[in-house]
Amino acid sequence: MTKRKIYLENIPLQDALEIWSKRLKEAGLDKPLSGERIPVDNSLGRVTAEAVSARISSPFYHASAMDGYAVRFVDTFGASETKPKRLKIGEQAIYVDTGDPMPDRFDAVIIIEDVNIVGSRESGVRGQESNPPSPPLLKGGEGGFIEIIEPATPWQNVRTIGEDMVATELILPENHTIRPVDIGALLGGGGTEITVRKRPKVVIIPTGTELVEPGTELKKGNIIEYNSRILGGMVEEWGGEPIRIKPVPDDYEMIKKAILEAIGIGDIVVINAGASLGSEDFTASVIEDIGEVIVHGVAIRPGKPVILGLLRGKPVVGIPGYPVSAFLTFNLFVKPLIHIWQGKVASPQEKIKARISRQVASPLGQEEFLRVKLGEVGDKLIATPVSRGAGVLMSLVRADGIVRIPAQSEGPGAGSEVEVELLRSKIDILNTIVCIGSHDNTLDLLANSLKKKYPEMSLSSGHVGSMGGLMAIKRGEAHIAGTHLLDEETGEYNIPFIKRLLPDKKMVLVNLVYREQGLLVPKGNPKGIKGFEDLRREDITFINRQAGAGTRLLTDKYLKDLGIDSKEVKGYTHEEYTHMGVASAILSGVADTGLAILSSAVALGLDFIPVAKERYDLAIPEEFYKTEMIKRLLSILKDDKDFRSQIMLMGGYDISDMGKIICKD
Amino acid sequence: MTKRKIYLENIPLQDALEIWSKRLKEAGLDKPLSGERIPVDNSLGRVTAEAVSARISSPFYHASAMDGYAVRFVDTFGASETKPKRLKIGEQAIYVDTGDPMPDRFDAVIIIEDVNIVGSRESGVRGQESNPPSPPLLKGGEGGFIEIIEPATPWQNVRTIGEDMVATELILPENHTIRPVDIGALLGGGGTEITVRKRPKVVIIPTGTELVEPGTELKKGNIIEYNSRILGGMVEEWGGEPIRIKPVPDDYEMIKKAILEAIGIGDIVVINAGASLGSEDFTASVIEDIGEVIVHGVAIRPGKPVILGLLRGKPVVGIPGYPVSAFLTFNLFVKPLIHIWQGKVASPQEKIKARISRQVASPLGQEEFLRVKLGEVGDKLIATPVSRGAGVLMSLVRADGIVRIPAQSEGPGAGSEVEVELLRSKIDILNTIVCIGSHDNTLDLLANSLKKKYPEMSLSSGHVGSMGGLMAIKRGEAHIAGTHLLDEETGEYNIPFIKRLLPDKKMVLVNLVYREQGLLVPKGNPKGIKGFEDLRREDITFINRQAGAGTRLLTDKYLKDLGIDSKEVKGYTHEEYTHMGVASAILSGVADTGLAILSSAVALGLDFIPVAKERYDLAIPEEFYKTEMIKRLLSILKDDKDFRSQIMLMGGYDISDMGKIICKD
Repeated sequence: MTKRKIYLENIPLQDALEIWSKRLKEAGLDKPLSGERIPVDNSLGRVTAEAVSARISSPFYHASAMDGYAVRFVDTFGASETKPKRLKIGEQAIYVDTGDPMPDRFDAVIIIEDVNIVGSRESGVRGQESNPPSPPLLKGGEGGFIEIIEPATPWQNVRTIGEDMVATELILPENHTIRPVDIGALLGGGGTEITVRKRPKVVIIPTGTELVEPGTELKKGNIIEYNSRILGGMVEEWGGEPIRIKPVPDDYEMIKKAILEAIGIGDIVVINAGASLGSEDFTASVIEDIGEVIVHGVAIRPGKPVILGLLRGKPVVGIPGYPVSAFLTFNLFVKPLIHIWQGKVASPQEKIKARISRQVASPLGQEEFLRVKLGEVGDKLIATPVSRGAGVLMSLVRADGIVRIPAQSEGPGAGSEVEVELLRSKIDILNTIVCIGSHDNTLDLLANSLKKKYPEMSLSSGHVGSMGGLMAIKRGEAHIAGTHLLDEETGEYNIPFIKRLLPDKKMVLVNLVYREQGLLVPKGNPKGIKGFEDLRREDITFINRQAGAGTRLLTDKYLKDLGIDSKEVKGYTHEEYTHMGVASAILSGVADTGLAILSSAVALGLDFIPVAKERYDLAIPEEFYKTEMIKRLLSILKDDKDFRSQIMLMGGYDISDMGKIICKD
Repeated sequence: MTKRKIYLENIPLQDALEIWSKRLKEAGLDKPLSGERIPVDNSLGRVTAEAVSARISSPFYHASAMDGYAVRFVDTFGASETKPKRLKIGEQAIYVDTGDPMPDRFDAVIIIEDVNIVGSRESGVRGQESNPPSPPLLKGGEGGFIEIIEPATPWQNVRTIGEDMVATELILPENHTIRPVDIGALLGGGGTEITVRKRPKVVIIPTGTELVEPGTELKKGNIIEYNSRILGGMVEEWGGEPIRIKPVPDDYEMIKKAILEAIGIGDIVVINAGASLGSEDFTASVIEDIGEVIVHGVAIRPGKPVILGLLRGKPVVGIPGYPVSAFLTFNLFVKPLIHIWQGKVASPQEKIKARISRQVASPLGQEEFLRVKLGEVGDKLIATPVSRGAGVLMSLVRADGIVRIPAQSEGPGAGSEVEVELLRSKIDILNTIVCIGSHDNTLDLLANSLKKKYPEMSLSSGHVGSMGGLMAIKRGEAHIAGTHLLDEETGEYNIPFIKRLLPDKKMVLVNLVYREQGLLVPKGNPKGIKGFEDLRREDITFINRQAGAGTRLLTDKYLKDLGIDSKEVKGYTHEEYTHMGVASAILSGVADTGLAILSSAVALGLDFIPVAKERYDLAIPEEFYKTEMIKRLLSILKDDKDFRSQIMLMGGYDISDMGKIICKD
């Protein structure tokens, strides 16, 4: 029953797209869906399925365009300043408000400001008195006259029938996405219903025995099912209607049943995941059994094990399970369909040229979708790669764009120009302060406080260690660098390094915090670690920070002071990039101890053996220090009470010098 | 009771915005609204009201990243090609699927492709057979062994705890608009609810005794109420919640009651209209009585009589009644608030430079918002003004952008550079064919057929008469010109004019249609008009077409042939710009007869006295004739059966030469 085909092709992306689009065309799936009638009031964002013409003219009667007197223009001939003409109210002149229908056979309006009302019991002249009379007076009494000093021209101040639109006139063409003003025009043209494209129904089937719904109490091995929500949100943004099925266990028959039910409901069925070749990956074999697999395996990274198939004349797509893979393949293979089916054109991905901050090695034969952060530093737009793991959803959350590395490329060299498909708007990116260097938890808080006070701004921080931050400043790739480098000889922080690494650059050094560094150990310190001397022990596995990190320098200094050879330390070569990474490794038992800041121990409930109090500064080139962006950032260090109290709550920080200039060239 | 303040200021826009924003700030209304807890599942597009951190790490256990065997890396030491190492299944090697938790104390995964399974009853090697065995075999039986030829490294193919995110890590900052991937990250971090900004509630009160709901049977004087739907749609697009009240008659007390009720419900109340000074305009006086009018009258056109006020600590805005005025003032004064209240930044209006195709005279002292159509012709982006009437909603529907003419400018001269705020995307505009010239109803059908076949393309047609079209070609402002100019001397259509007006330009002339021109008269021809000779009659009012229109030339030719002086023709100086405009004037009694094409008579149910059959061609510069855009357009003339049958249904057309080249340089 459960026959499995163990094959996974490696079709170039372009070929896969072409095969897919050819087969969809053959199946008649490359056309808009049929239309449905809906109330115009509910049609915002929908797409017209046929041209709409005005049923009635607007206005459909001659209407006064102003407040004033309707007249027959022939009666006004000869009026002049020297020879004013009088028209009898009620016979030759009839008061009209803006929008009022013109009395029959009247063909001009004289605005109220241009008439004198005379001869009636209550008279008054509009607009010339400081305390004007109440409205009935303005209209002039019956039996009175208006006096005019200029003849009217035919149809002056009249909105003639059809001024806005004439009955039968085209209001909207087919395949038009309806905007608020269009709704007005449709209603004004006498319509109350409209034929719009049906919203494509996308049934999303999450599969996996390990999946649990969000909010479920978690057991080891559970995976919170959120991919279907990401895909559903994307469908909504594209104008489709997502229909989410409850997770189906990895069971051939249950998956088959779910797909067969789904195909009766949706215009397309999306199965997530089981698209690969594992012993519990049934998607391909089920589709093969009941329908047809057209493509299985595309030469992209991440996202290779995608399945494109047809079942009962409808598309069935198997989407890989890792969230980044799911996002990318869904965009590549499903987005165009959802648009075509609505008669919409997917707005082309906005692209921008940038320089990549470091070399990226990419395997030959696969088109890689590299996530990057972007920042404009000086006049250069810099793209910095973020995590490449297909399972690291946060890499997408944090990314500003995607760089496609072609299958035949081994990856761009440092500083080379790349094209970035934007995930955030260009203006957001230009309003981003790029902070590269050492990691500190206060930077997250600072990013948040900045966005809170200035919603249009962002702080993007890249964690490459203190030394890496100063090098990024040197290369012109960062506005600020977070740094806590202790000079062994002088015992001074940061300044000697800046002088050495950036001799020609005018820099300003501003204090962020003083902070406690120490050895993190599991709660209760089960192995009784007392200090660095314990790192020699056979039963102790250390977790290190990467070369160039200030914390790594501190580690090396203590090992040196104690005469410990790094080879004696188990785990010395296992490097993490952040304090939280170290803390997490200890919490999860990957290591027994590691050097990190107190706040990371507090956050994960670890014990902490204090080692040093160090100064953490922000190094800022003077050219950026003077900019409005950086001034705003520094104003938060100085004045934001919320920010300060949040830092104190994390523990382990001394903020007495926060925002102070430590040194300035 | 009904005291009215008759004053309307003329405050410069910038001043009005500053006063408004200062007063909002003083009233504490320049801050985001408070937050509300909602399910993460419903949070797409909402804005975070506080920073969100991960509650749990993701993954929260060490998980296999591949299908294969979990091992302890110490057990794999020494394995090599020449000296394979065997690990006992169930003790030293445990099968895991992707995502499975790592067994306790196991710290590496060897992928299934890299192991030989030996020694168990059923054995097989994965990935090397063309017909691979079913999954249970791959796992190897208990008691069997896996054989490996390479040692593992610690934590290889394992997703360690927190690889995606570590508990306490910032997922989203405050003031972040939630995207599909963010929903995934929020759920993955263990959250199911989130605090987002409340959607600002905008109560919209349509006022006007003349207003009726769409779908009501119309009586003269009725106005279909659609402004509130336009404004509501705009609020929705901005992320707010529109609350629409049923129309309130022009009655002081009823309006007051409606506003007082609304202020209890909404975060802002919008009254449309009654913002001006007419005898039935109560908005300002009501606000003045129960709250405060801060600004009444801004020096903008259209949109002058806007009211900005405060009532019980909330903003109250009176929006003018003409739809274009309503749209513009709502954008200027309400949009920023709806964004600020959500902690969002309104994405800045995309702008583009263009050359204006004709001079625009604009009054001093008012900032004018001129609607324009845009088209890229050759390498020039051309902005062509459309109707300036505040009541002409179709001018907004058709516009591609808005040009702001500063208060101190008398308007841009022809050909001068202007900045255009885009209403459509740039790519849409670049995909637009600009057709300027004579008006024919088939152009509407052609526009629709083009959009139907090529949803990304548009045909924009400007109606300035045949001669105007050829001049637009000469100035490089149009891709094609619709023309039906009869040369009196030769009796030939179009070619003599093209030779005269465009002597140096290589042109291609393509036939669109032959069509019937004739005198339109009301149904039943009440005045017994037989032909042009009747235009001499005292009781006949004619409606003319503008100078340069082919139809105007035809009129003048017939008058000349009959020896009629244009001064003898009543209404000769009253000009319309389109056939439908002429038809509409006759239907509504503005004139008794006018020359126009048969289809316009059919559309409005008028009678028709045939005068001539004429040729209507498209004149296309050769440089454009060769482009893909124009090829697509011409393919519709030649091949689109729907298009042809729609034309035939209109009546009065001969399409036997449609798409044929009449003449080519």
